[in-house]
Amino acid sequence: MASRDFSPRSPLVIDAQWKERARSVIPGGIYGHQAVTPKRLPDSYPQFYARGKGTRLWDVDGNEYLDFMCAYGPMIVGYANGAVDATAAAQQALGDPLTGPTARMVELAEKLTGLVAHADWAMFAKNGTDATAMAVTVARAATGRKKLLKEQRAYHGAKAWFTPGLSGTTPEDRANIIEFAYNDVASLREAADSANGDVAAIIVPPFKHDSDLDLELVDPVFAAETRALADRLGAVLILDEVRSCFRIDMRGAWESLGIRPDLTAFSKSLANGYPLSAITGIDALTEAASSIYVTGSFWYSGVAMAASLTTIELLEQDDAISRMVTLGNRLRSGLAQQAEARGLVLHQSGPVQLPRIRFDNDPEMKLAYAFTSATIRRGLILHPWHNMFLSAAHTEEDIDLALEITDIAFDELVTEHFATPV
Amino acid sequence: MASRDFSPRSPLVIDAQWKERARSVIPGGIYGHQAVTPKRLPDSYPQFYARGKGTRLWDVDGNEYLDFMCAYGPMIVGYANGAVDATAAAQQALGDPLTGPTARMVELAEKLTGLVAHADWAMFAKNGTDATAMAVTVARAATGRKKLLKEQRAYHGAKAWFTPGLSGTTPEDRANIIEFAYNDVASLREAADSANGDVAAIIVPPFKHDSDLDLELVDPVFAAETRALADRLGAVLILDEVRSCFRIDMRGAWESLGIRPDLTAFSKSLANGYPLSAITGIDALTEAASSIYVTGSFWYSGVAMAASLTTIELLEQDDAISRMVTLGNRLRSGLAQQAEARGLVLHQSGPVQLPRIRFDNDPEMKLAYAFTSATIRRGLILHPWHNMFLSAAHTEEDIDLALEITDIAFDELVTEHFATPV
Repeated sequence: MASRDFSPRSPLVIDAQWKERARSVIPGGIYGHQAVTPKRLPDSYPQFYARGKGTRLWDVDGNEYLDFMCAYGPMIVGYANGAVDATAAAQQALGDPLTGPTARMVELAEKLTGLVAHADWAMFAKNGTDATAMAVTVARAATGRKKLLKEQRAYHGAKAWFTPGLSGTTPEDRANIIEFAYNDVASLREAADSANGDVAAIIVPPFKHDSDLDLELVDPVFAAETRALADRLGAVLILDEVRSCFRIDMRGAWESLGIRPDLTAFSKSLANGYPLSAITGIDALTEAASSIYVTGSFWYSGVAMAASLTTIELLEQDDAISRMVTLGNRLRSGLAQQAEARGLVLHQSGPVQLPRIRFDNDPEMKLAYAFTSATIRRGLILHPWHNMFLSAAHTEEDIDLALEITDIAFDELVTEHFATPV
Repeated sequence: MASRDFSPRSPLVIDAQWKERARSVIPGGIYGHQAVTPKRLPDSYPQFYARGKGTRLWDVDGNEYLDFMCAYGPMIVGYANGAVDATAAAQQALGDPLTGPTARMVELAEKLTGLVAHADWAMFAKNGTDATAMAVTVARAATGRKKLLKEQRAYHGAKAWFTPGLSGTTPEDRANIIEFAYNDVASLREAADSANGDVAAIIVPPFKHDSDLDLELVDPVFAAETRALADRLGAVLILDEVRSCFRIDMRGAWESLGIRPDLTAFSKSLANGYPLSAITGIDALTEAASSIYVTGSFWYSGVAMAASLTTIELLEQDDAISRMVTLGNRLRSGLAQQAEARGLVLHQSGPVQLPRIRFDNDPEMKLAYAFTSATIRRGLILHPWHNMFLSAAHTEEDIDLALEITDIAFDELVTEHFATPV
């Protein structure tokens, strides 16, 4: 950090100017994940960032932040990672894309099939949504069936099938979706029964990560039932690792449970920020996968694939996931102690490396907004309602610095929201 | 070219090795636009390319080619363009993506709204399909209606609504599509009538570009009717410029006809190969556009936006479209003369800068495959059935070199397919 006195940052003056310009030429001034209404970020967050390096971000007003969002996931080995960017730059110098794929496509497919336990093959795209949609299409092609069993409210991409917002979608978009409750075996079976044998796929995230609820780790009994039920139905089990990609288990998020999906969708941290997504699948789905029509103008680009190869190497060399777990535990324990010392109930959920915080009895998120606003004003980016992301670039010193700032933020919160007038 | 003796290139030995490796780890050994069955490229085409510079490509066996595909469109100012890549590299060094957008997003939206005649605002995504889908979603949100009028067989992206292949799609995916024939006003009106007032949008490409038919320029009367009909119906007119982006008119492909759409989808050459797409829209659609849920993990990335800003500057400085048209006419005239001199009927269609060639009486494309195989063996990449792409990097010398090679290829074609035994 530029200074460690935790004095509030400079006002967001230049940010406000860019916001005003944005409102003239972009609907609502912003699209995408920061445009999610009604729960936008508090005004205390800058909208525009100027640069990042490692675990640090700088906003357009020059304020430095310790970041725990990793650009909503992608930056798994840190912003502007030298090794990844060097590989990507070398590939970029060769021209990208070309009038066909490069050998990087084969090398990366070989890497993923060697790494991911269930994977016999891989295909690549750009968005996470491309990957989940491609997986569903493969499942339908393989089974000749239509229905998709998905978790209630689960987000599997900004496809009309899945989006939390309905504006501009049609009932037909969702005609083939049947929902179940996560970690609820009876609900899953009931969903399957209601499909009358027409189940193409069960799609499931490796843990429950709805943005407005506590995260929930998977119950191994439920995970096993998704596999057993898919087998009984002759349906395809799709694991959506777009968000969890390489942060839970390099072999696949459920490998330690002994559960292997038929298809997995990956994105976000697959190439440390270079736009890339992938699906991996089993041999039995090869023919279906080669029968579907999927394409994109940039899907042969070698740059993101080269970046992914280096990202994976760095994660493997570094035993990165173990380190993220250790650091995530340190952060979780520290926050728990700080909250408890003040008599606050802080719900911390999800894998420690993909943590979410929520204050008890805070339905309108007033406490969450006040707390994260207090941290961001002192140079620490936490998120009031979305899960956060640790990376291999985070260090023990980063966690300790974060906890020094949260300590001040908890004090402010108590003073402003809980203090009894003397 | 390395040599100008037009001797056949080296055999595709290393390419064959990569193809074999690809078949073990990628369904069918390839996905995307080169996996389109049954009309793949002839075996004479390399599958894997090593690098590109300007208008030249090199395959993995080291053969050099003069390319007229521009990576299926994106490379509008040439492979490995120094100015574009320098801007992108400078942005990449700042980290990408960050935990929010950069000011490049606003600058590019300002640039597009200044450039594109109908545009009051812009939003960005990654794939062309993201942009066409986003446009349709905006139209549905704005009108509260469902039906979409689209051209029979028109390709508007690899979305289940649109794909030429049906494998893995459901009837419900297409429940709200009503088709019309391009350049056929009666057919368009009939499609609208059959919707019983429930038309959200008319989506139309600026010229007809189905891959297995001759291209067809728009009839100005038809273009005017799409506008008038949309107005009468209270529907949204969407122009799909994903493919034509910046190759017909920087202000919008139909601006010279005096026809302005309500929404335009752009991609491919928007950022000279950096993955980016956009929609632009009119003020009346701002609220609808800000109501829809659209996002992607890489949609705030500044690198492709920086690349786009430089790409547009280069195109403007260079009067690039006029030059592409001049060169395209030179290529078309040359090919016509060469074919005519041999008594061959060669159908050349589409804008000259996005040309397609087809031999008369060649339903199985034997002549097209033989001709383009003869050119590629001598270092010239043409396409047997897809439209091709000229770029601002092409020169008069490139056209003349291409014509020298096609002259030899026509001779070979005549000898092999039309020669009367002596």
